[in-house]
Amino acid sequence: MAVTLLYNKGDNEIIKKLTNEEMKKVVQSGEGLLWLDLVNPGKEELDILEKVFELHPLTLEDCINTITRPKIDRFEKYMFIVIHAAATTPRAQRVRTVELNICLGKNFIITIHQEPIKGVETAIDRTQRNSVTMSKGRPDTLLHLVVDSLVDNYLPVLDMMDSKISNIETKVLKSPTQKTLNNIFAVKKDILYLRRFIGPQRDIVNFLSKENFQFINSRIRVYFRDVYDNMMFINDTIDTYRDVINGAFDAYLSAITNRTNDIMKVLTIIATIMMPLTLITGIYGMNFADMPLLQWRWGFYSISVFMILLGIGMLIYFKRKEWI
Amino acid sequence: MAVTLLYNKGDNEIIKKLTNEEMKKVVQSGEGLLWLDLVNPGKEELDILEKVFELHPLTLEDCINTITRPKIDRFEKYMFIVIHAAATTPRAQRVRTVELNICLGKNFIITIHQEPIKGVETAIDRTQRNSVTMSKGRPDTLLHLVVDSLVDNYLPVLDMMDSKISNIETKVLKSPTQKTLNNIFAVKKDILYLRRFIGPQRDIVNFLSKENFQFINSRIRVYFRDVYDNMMFINDTIDTYRDVINGAFDAYLSAITNRTNDIMKVLTIIATIMMPLTLITGIYGMNFADMPLLQWRWGFYSISVFMILLGIGMLIYFKRKEWI
Amino acid sequence: MAVTLLYNKGDNEIIKKLTNEEMKKVVQSGEGLLWLDLVNPGKEELDILEKVFELHPLTLEDCINTITRPKIDRFEKYMFIVIHAAATTPRAQRVRTVELNICLGKNFIITIHQEPIKGVETAIDRTQRNSVTMSKGRPDTLLHLVVDSLVDNYLPVLDMMDSKISNIETKVLKSPTQKTLNNIFAVKKDILYLRRFIGPQRDIVNFLSKENFQFINSRIRVYFRDVYDNMMFINDTIDTYRDVINGAFDAYLSAITNRTNDIMKVLTIIATIMMPLTLITGIYGMNFADMPLLQWRWGFYSISVFMILLGIGMLIYFKRKEWI
Amino acid sequence: MAVTLLYNKGDNEIIKKLTNEEMKKVVQSGEGLLWLDLVNPGKEELDILEKVFELHPLTLEDCINTITRPKIDRFEKYMFIVIHAAATTPRAQRVRTVELNICLGKNFIITIHQEPIKGVETAIDRTQRNSVTMSKGRPDTLLHLVVDSLVDNYLPVLDMMDSKISNIETKVLKSPTQKTLNNIFAVKKDILYLRRFIGPQRDIVNFLSKENFQFINSRIRVYFRDVYDNMMFINDTIDTYRDVINGAFDAYLSAITNRTNDIMKVLTIIATIMMPLTLITGIYGMNFADMPLLQWRWGFYSISVFMILLGIGMLIYFKRKEWI
Amino acid sequence: MAVTLLYNKGDNEIIKKLTNEEMKKVVQSGEGLLWLDLVNPGKEELDILEKVFELHPLTLEDCINTITRPKIDRFEKYMFIVIHAAATTPRAQRVRTVELNICLGKNFIITIHQEPIKGVETAIDRTQRNSVTMSKGRPDTLLHLVVDSLVDNYLPVLDMMDSKISNIETKVLKSPTQKTLNNIFAVKKDILYLRRFIGPQRDIVNFLSKENFQFINSRIRVYFRDVYDNMMFINDTIDTYRDVINGAFDAYLSAITNRTNDIMKVLTIIATIMMPLTLITGIYGMNFADMPLLQWRWGFYSISVFMILLGIGMLIYFKRKEWI
Repeated sequence: MAVTLLYNKGDNEIIKKLTNEEMKKVVQSGEGLLWLDLVNPGKEELDILEKVFELHPLTLEDCINTITRPKIDRFEKYMFIVIHAAATTPRAQRVRTVELNICLGKNFIITIHQEPIKGVETAIDRTQRNSVTMSKGRPDTLLHLVVDSLVDNYLPVLDMMDSKISNIETKVLKSPTQKTLNNIFAVKKDILYLRRFIGPQRDIVNFLSKENFQFINSRIRVYFRDVYDNMMFINDTIDTYRDVINGAFDAYLSAITNRTNDIMKVLTIIATIMMPLTLITGIYGMNFADMPLLQWRWGFYSISVFMILLGIGMLIYFKRKEWI
Repeated sequence: MAVTLLYNKGDNEIIKKLTNEEMKKVVQSGEGLLWLDLVNPGKEELDILEKVFELHPLTLEDCINTITRPKIDRFEKYMFIVIHAAATTPRAQRVRTVELNICLGKNFIITIHQEPIKGVETAIDRTQRNSVTMSKGRPDTLLHLVVDSLVDNYLPVLDMMDSKISNIETKVLKSPTQKTLNNIFAVKKDILYLRRFIGPQRDIVNFLSKENFQFINSRIRVYFRDVYDNMMFINDTIDTYRDVINGAFDAYLSAITNRTNDIMKVLTIIATIMMPLTLITGIYGMNFADMPLLQWRWGFYSISVFMILLGIGMLIYFKRKEWI
Repeated sequence: MAVTLLYNKGDNEIIKKLTNEEMKKVVQSGEGLLWLDLVNPGKEELDILEKVFELHPLTLEDCINTITRPKIDRFEKYMFIVIHAAATTPRAQRVRTVELNICLGKNFIITIHQEPIKGVETAIDRTQRNSVTMSKGRPDTLLHLVVDSLVDNYLPVLDMMDSKISNIETKVLKSPTQKTLNNIFAVKKDILYLRRFIGPQRDIVNFLSKENFQFINSRIRVYFRDVYDNMMFINDTIDTYRDVINGAFDAYLSAITNRTNDIMKVLTIIATIMMPLTLITGIYGMNFADMPLLQWRWGFYSISVFMILLGIGMLIYFKRKEWI
Repeated sequence: MAVTLLYNKGDNEIIKKLTNEEMKKVVQSGEGLLWLDLVNPGKEELDILEKVFELHPLTLEDCINTITRPKIDRFEKYMFIVIHAAATTPRAQRVRTVELNICLGKNFIITIHQEPIKGVETAIDRTQRNSVTMSKGRPDTLLHLVVDSLVDNYLPVLDMMDSKISNIETKVLKSPTQKTLNNIFAVKKDILYLRRFIGPQRDIVNFLSKENFQFINSRIRVYFRDVYDNMMFINDTIDTYRDVINGAFDAYLSAITNRTNDIMKVLTIIATIMMPLTLITGIYGMNFADMPLLQWRWGFYSISVFMILLGIGMLIYFKRKEWI
Repeated sequence: MAVTLLYNKGDNEIIKKLTNEEMKKVVQSGEGLLWLDLVNPGKEELDILEKVFELHPLTLEDCINTITRPKIDRFEKYMFIVIHAAATTPRAQRVRTVELNICLGKNFIITIHQEPIKGVETAIDRTQRNSVTMSKGRPDTLLHLVVDSLVDNYLPVLDMMDSKISNIETKVLKSPTQKTLNNIFAVKKDILYLRRFIGPQRDIVNFLSKENFQFINSRIRVYFRDVYDNMMFINDTIDTYRDVINGAFDAYLSAITNRTNDIMKVLTIIATIMMPLTLITGIYGMNFADMPLLQWRWGFYSISVFMILLGIGMLIYFKRKEWI
């Protein structure tokens, strides 16, 4: 329930505290520049949004709802943008996204999220330090600041996935185990999860860089175009990851098939060598009264030599067949 | 053959009974607001549709026909919408859909379905309780009410599928059986079934939120846009489910392949250890008159020790090969 | 070479015989309504098409050619439509399509096909019985009649495929055999075959319901829209069948893999129990002069008991491993 | 380096020899109709193209280059079309394509190819025999003649592939061997190869039938529409072939899997019957001093009967399990 | 940090050295033609870009950033193009791409890259040798020169991949090993890598040949159209490679499956012949007091003959079953 307020009348001073009535006056005057950041907003904060900023009921609903698709809604007095920031779960190293709701008005920007988002924190920090950003800026520059640092925060997530995938690829070729397989499926799910948000998100940034929006100056669009290029890069990378991980799965399956093949070979070699030898011992173990060689002095030794030669012959045969 | 009638002249009173002639007058006057809900309509009710509301023969045909694709047909005096509600079969826990036909006129809305639909019942209940909905409302607000609660009713179905898929994923990694496979294919069919209706349904809600329809006020469109966002969310979720279940099938297949591999290993290890040992016993079971060791006092024990060492050597070899 | 002619001047009488000259006059006058149905037309009939109706050489070529893609060609005096009716081979129960060529002029419709088509026969029958169809109708109503009953005739074919697929699904889960596999591939080919025609056919009906054609009244378009909905339904159904049959193939493959797994288990269990026991008998079958137990009175019985215990132990082990 | 020239001033006579200067005059006058066919053109012929017909350097480059994608380039004085004819290698029965470059001007058409193309030869022959084609024709009719006979020449290639695929399908179901697999991959590559050219080629013919080209009369477009229908048919057929051959590959794989299954069954049956019997003989081969039955008169026979019964019992068991 | 400067006032002389101030004057005058090539630019060179050419901050950022998607950005005074050249790693023979940033202004072109690119070097060489290129040329002809030779440099890379794929195909059919599999996955990754850049690159060249750009003369567009055809060819080729390598992977898998099949056959044949024979020796090795044949003079020989016949009979049986 953290609330951060930045307000600038046009001079270099940043005001951090306003009553609801003052805020309402600022919004109605349309002058200055106001940034309201709400983390996990409670009933009181939502009341501000409803009464001070006069947000549409559907917007308020979307702000509470934690799973909204990335989108842009245009209203008369503001536009409402939903985008997702990438995050990782600290232990399991899985990928997740955090929703960020943005309202962009004539002289204000409101950012609402359920938990702290690194990209937004960075943007607030940078804005506070550099007073010019607020005194000369307009809401659309702040929007660019937020969206840009949010998209930049996808890169470490991609790096994490990259190293995971490299690990998997190395292991698949060297020593694939059931754990490798589980890792493959975990990464696949992460990619699935990311792709679900990246696609619509990319479209939204594309809209911002192309369409004519009331609260976005045409000069700022080239910057959104740049963010769009970054989104496209992220999108391409994830698509590549998907293809690579699918390739790793194929490699895993064929490695296992190869291995079954190798195991079968060992079994067949052992059986093919041992069975005929056992048959010979069986023959000379029969209790016939009248059998050749049995009484001969060198009988046992000659049969032993024959068996050894037979065994070696088999091994040579398998060597030739390239089974060994 | 349940018939529910709600009529409001513009005041707060809701009339629940009208003769066919009165109804015809209402329709012709174009004033007030009338909601006619028909469950499993018989010949008599279809006659009302034909004579009182003058529906097109094709519309009547679609109302009787139980399998119609989601669609919008525009006629001069009304528009005809077909959408599908999600439902589950109580026992087998399979997914099914129920068709809902809607006629939207200047001052009336008709909802026709073959069996009770939870979303429609909820909407009727809410309308009866809140008299303002009817006295100030127009047919398009009722349409939004119906479509919205119908789309909301997809969510428990998705939740059911979600828990099923989670179950499958857990079992696939732990102990995949033929039953797991059957569950995978059952869920796959459910997803196939849902996708068949979700796609066109989403397009219809998109139409309602974008195109200029005679009986839909432009101010209500933003609400249909909201329903569209929900439809997109459902659509994305089902697409993700499909990818996840396909991944589960891949995981199942590779788990089985791994298991065959393991079984092969057991067989090969047993054969590789037992066969040479059996060969040795075979050798010393031969009936040659002149064989070494046989008469020696420690012959049996030394051979036994040799066999034990050979067996242990094999086990160590397989250990090194990481087969055990 | 069956020729059916229906002509109506505008009164209720249907004339069934016209000379070529009379027919030419009718065509030139542009009055009345004429339906010419040619089954497997010979040279004489094609001459009528060329000289009386003045069809374009390309049209005549398409009428003779038995494999033409569904299409619409517009000419100055008529439009030429090719669509396909679904049929089944009586014995092998395979799916096939029969081509129907239609020429639609100002006051005539010509239907040309190489073999009798049920949908066309039904349409002719209905037209002859109901004299109003011809006296008040126009060629476009006849076109709708033909196309509609033709599309309706797809439904029994779909039903046949549905029951086949259900059979396959039941067998795949219960007792998959090579025959099941052959059935899967047969149905797959049927689906492939149907999809080849359904797609373009759907587009053609869509054209008829949307575009502005010279010989089609705008009031009739809503009926073609209805046929289009049916085509979409057929299209969706076949797409679903394709996905279901692919799922059945996956199920078949995994059933076979499971079965190989089971066979391997039986083999491994047998080998793992029998081989150690055989080794023991081999040991006590060796001919060493000095071996323990051999001379003991209970030697054989104690070893037998040991072997039985070993065997039971193995079985318990496999039971625990859930192999049995 | 074969050069064929056909020139007609507008009368019925066809002139077959022109000097470069005469040719240049013809081109500049824009009257009459000239067809120049160059097979494997050398430097001299390319000079004619450059100086007499004033072709663009890029066109000349494309004419020499043997691997150009099907395309249409428009220049001021002519349009340049690249299409591919289908051919087969005589021995290996593989599919290949031969590139045909066409320049279409106001009163001339130039066809350039590296080796003789059957479709072009047919077109030249037909033109020479029927003098009207040239005296009344225009370059676009000649273009249609060439493109039409070229597209027709795809049909025997498709027939060849059809019979190959039928062979494969029969063999896959009856007796799949490694050779069948090689055939499958050979046909797959042929299909891949054809698809690469068919797609763009189809687009080109579509362009010719739809767009407004300077040198193509609108009346001739309906004929290109007909060629387009043929191209679509070829395209559909190849797509179907691709699906069928993929199905054949699936069938092959599942046949092999089935066969491994059958082999495993034989092995398991043999082992399951033989191993227990061998164990029994092992037991009665042990050298215990005191064993039952050994001294009994019917000992051997009763054990033999027991072993036979055990073997038969096993066979009945496998029969019941439907393994035999 | 190599810097190459070519400047021409309009006469034949090429000036290779300019101070920053002179350069700025040239840029402002808009006359002559200037080519600045920067390899791995340092801070100083970037300062020139910023101050002399007044490049937008986003452009400068993209020039430093090594992984940018192929794209075109239009600015007021120049357009910024990013394309990728193909290269190979010398040892591992893997494919990689090198980014080339191009700024095209009214009378200048700037090429910026992190390492030497063969295509750019060739273009610079050709420009220096042929003085007309610069004296009569404009920046767009230089752009075409660079892009064209860059696209041409893809061909040797494709040739390398082609020979690799041919090698793989030969080995897959003859003697597939784990190394073949690794090669397949290496080529698959290369194709994945190339496809990622080829697609957007093709779109860029298409833009250059179609859209109306400020600094590109309409007469030069036909040349970009030619480059586009080459890009399409490269694109098609890589798509074909992808399909071929996927086919090779399928072939590999089925070859391994076939081989497992063959190994199983060997095992089953050995077991089926040896086990019954061993059973017979076991039977005659039993110690029953009263057994037939044992005392007979020809007992051993007749049993031996029987065993040999049994073995031969088995072999004939397997021959008939086509297992040998």
